Amino acid sequence: MTTMTTMTECLSETIDQRTTVDIGRYFADRAALVDRWMDRLIPPVTESPSIIHEAMRYSLFAGGKRLRPVLAMAAAELFDVAEESLLPVASSLEMIHTYSLIHDDLPAMDDDDLRRGMPTCHVRYGEAIAILAGDALLTRAFQTLVEAPISTPEIRIALIAEVARAAGTSGALIGGQVLDLLSEGQPVTATLLEDIHRAKTGALIRCAVRTGALLGRADGSQLDLLTTYGEKIGLAFQIADDLLDETATTAQLGKTAGKDVAAHKATYTALHGIEGARHLARRVTAEAISALDLFDSLDSSASLPGDTSTLRAIARFIVERES
Amino acid sequence: MTTMTTMTECLSETIDQRTTVDIGRYFADRAALVDRWMDRLIPPVTESPSIIHEAMRYSLFAGGKRLRPVLAMAAAELFDVAEESLLPVASSLEMIHTYSLIHDDLPAMDDDDLRRGMPTCHVRYGEAIAILAGDALLTRAFQTLVEAPISTPEIRIALIAEVARAAGTSGALIGGQVLDLLSEGQPVTATLLEDIHRAKTGALIRCAVRTGALLGRADGSQLDLLTTYGEKIGLAFQIADDLLDETATTAQLGKTAGKDVAAHKATYTALHGIEGARHLARRVTAEAISALDLFDSLDSSASLPGDTSTLRAIARFIVERES
Repeated sequence: MTTMTTMTECLSETIDQRTTVDIGRYFADRAALVDRWMDRLIPPVTESPSIIHEAMRYSLFAGGKRLRPVLAMAAAELFDVAEESLLPVASSLEMIHTYSLIHDDLPAMDDDDLRRGMPTCHVRYGEAIAILAGDALLTRAFQTLVEAPISTPEIRIALIAEVARAAGTSGALIGGQVLDLLSEGQPVTATLLEDIHRAKTGALIRCAVRTGALLGRADGSQLDLLTTYGEKIGLAFQIADDLLDETATTAQLGKTAGKDVAAHKATYTALHGIEGARHLARRVTAEAISALDLFDSLDSSASLPGDTSTLRAIARFIVERES
Repeated sequence: MTTMTTMTECLSETIDQRTTVDIGRYFADRAALVDRWMDRLIPPVTESPSIIHEAMRYSLFAGGKRLRPVLAMAAAELFDVAEESLLPVASSLEMIHTYSLIHDDLPAMDDDDLRRGMPTCHVRYGEAIAILAGDALLTRAFQTLVEAPISTPEIRIALIAEVARAAGTSGALIGGQVLDLLSEGQPVTATLLEDIHRAKTGALIRCAVRTGALLGRADGSQLDLLTTYGEKIGLAFQIADDLLDETATTAQLGKTAGKDVAAHKATYTALHGIEGARHLARRVTAEAISALDLFDSLDSSASLPGDTSTLRAIARFIVERES
């Protein structure tokens, strides 16, 4: 806790805090909205085969910050996007994130018993159902994207392409998990570490910001700057995660603390030390904020209905969070 | 072998054999074409992380009849569909089929060591990479569908929706595998058996025929009849599979023979006996052919560039095959 306070204090020196967004409340409100939509988008447990829908719901509704949906929503709020389009897209990102957690937690992978403060899917339902629940959430994400009421077929196709690439193997979700598995016990270099996390957590976080922007019909310059923002906060998120793994408790995290260190995983703290990792987190967060400054200075941004205050607050939240 | 010959003889009494399509050659030619396209559509092993692309390719190129792509192609040949549109769509079906085989073969599921005459993916690459290779093939299937040069966004969206539903939980691929797992050692009823196979193998076979028809811009009546054809041959395929599990050898099948019986799985032979299952296979194949007769009698079918002879030959092949 004290270590996080220190990080917060350091950050507040460098990162502009011009807004008064209550980010805790923002996350809570948006997470509740995402949960209501996901409840509609996932088949009920009364639908056969009951057990698979129960397992999908168990992991999906186990809590979590809903960072990826919230990012999509915060980016979309700059523009003018209808809830009926935005929420299914945002929900699909959480389905993909949850599928990746279920599979990563399997005994053959990271072998974790605890996730979001609850027994992992395979502990609760067995490995076979957990594998299939992950498969089903991934599949359902694409079904959700293809069935959502999105204004034009071109935007829908751009969104599906965006999500499919972010969830894939080349610099993306699955590729990152592969690199992470291969890195265990290996010497860690800065390049390998960046490759792992740009893919494993970065690609879907970047994608989340971009889906909001695509739904909002962002122009090329706007999309580029929001993409930079997404890349920077993705990196900041992972550095903060590595710091939390070392400095927070299992109870705070809802997942096993200290596990990455124990497994000799490639982490930012292993490579740079705790102070070095904090410095890096500050730097990339400042870069994320700079991208928003540039976004605000675009001529095309002057007439937008929303502003970047929420995205700024999320950037700070990502490195200041305690779980 | 003799049992299959008998089935063939019985079938030839009831099923019209008006055509002289060399179905063995047709399958071989189309499978080679699909393999060439899949080689382009899956990242090369030189792309990082190499191991995941190697594992995806290992299972994808382990052989197999390519039934689903061939069905999509045979349905599309009734109409006029460009190879550049058809082959990526056909290939995406094989990616999904292969992902489902990799996951079904895992120790936590059917625990099989042999598939397509080769060690299964997890035997060759370990469980973690096998799980991720399955995930990656499923994801790549959607990326392929969203990136293929398809003439209109509406057709592309219809295809993605078709595939996502067929790969899902409700009367579809994943749901069928769940029902199949749950059925082990349970009393088998005709309804349960049909529910399992309509979902587990039927949904993707039906989908394959429909994707070809959708690409060909089939009208409503044509699509309905081709859908019936797809449903019937899906059922015939599964009955033939159950018969082969009992009557063929492991060497013929390229996967462990007699395994379903040993696991007390819900099979058509367990429920109806070998003769009863053969009778059912004949009946549903005749129903598939009847749907094609009706298709041919549609006014809208008179002007089509292709005819139903290949689809008829495939229906016969499905129940006459020896592996």
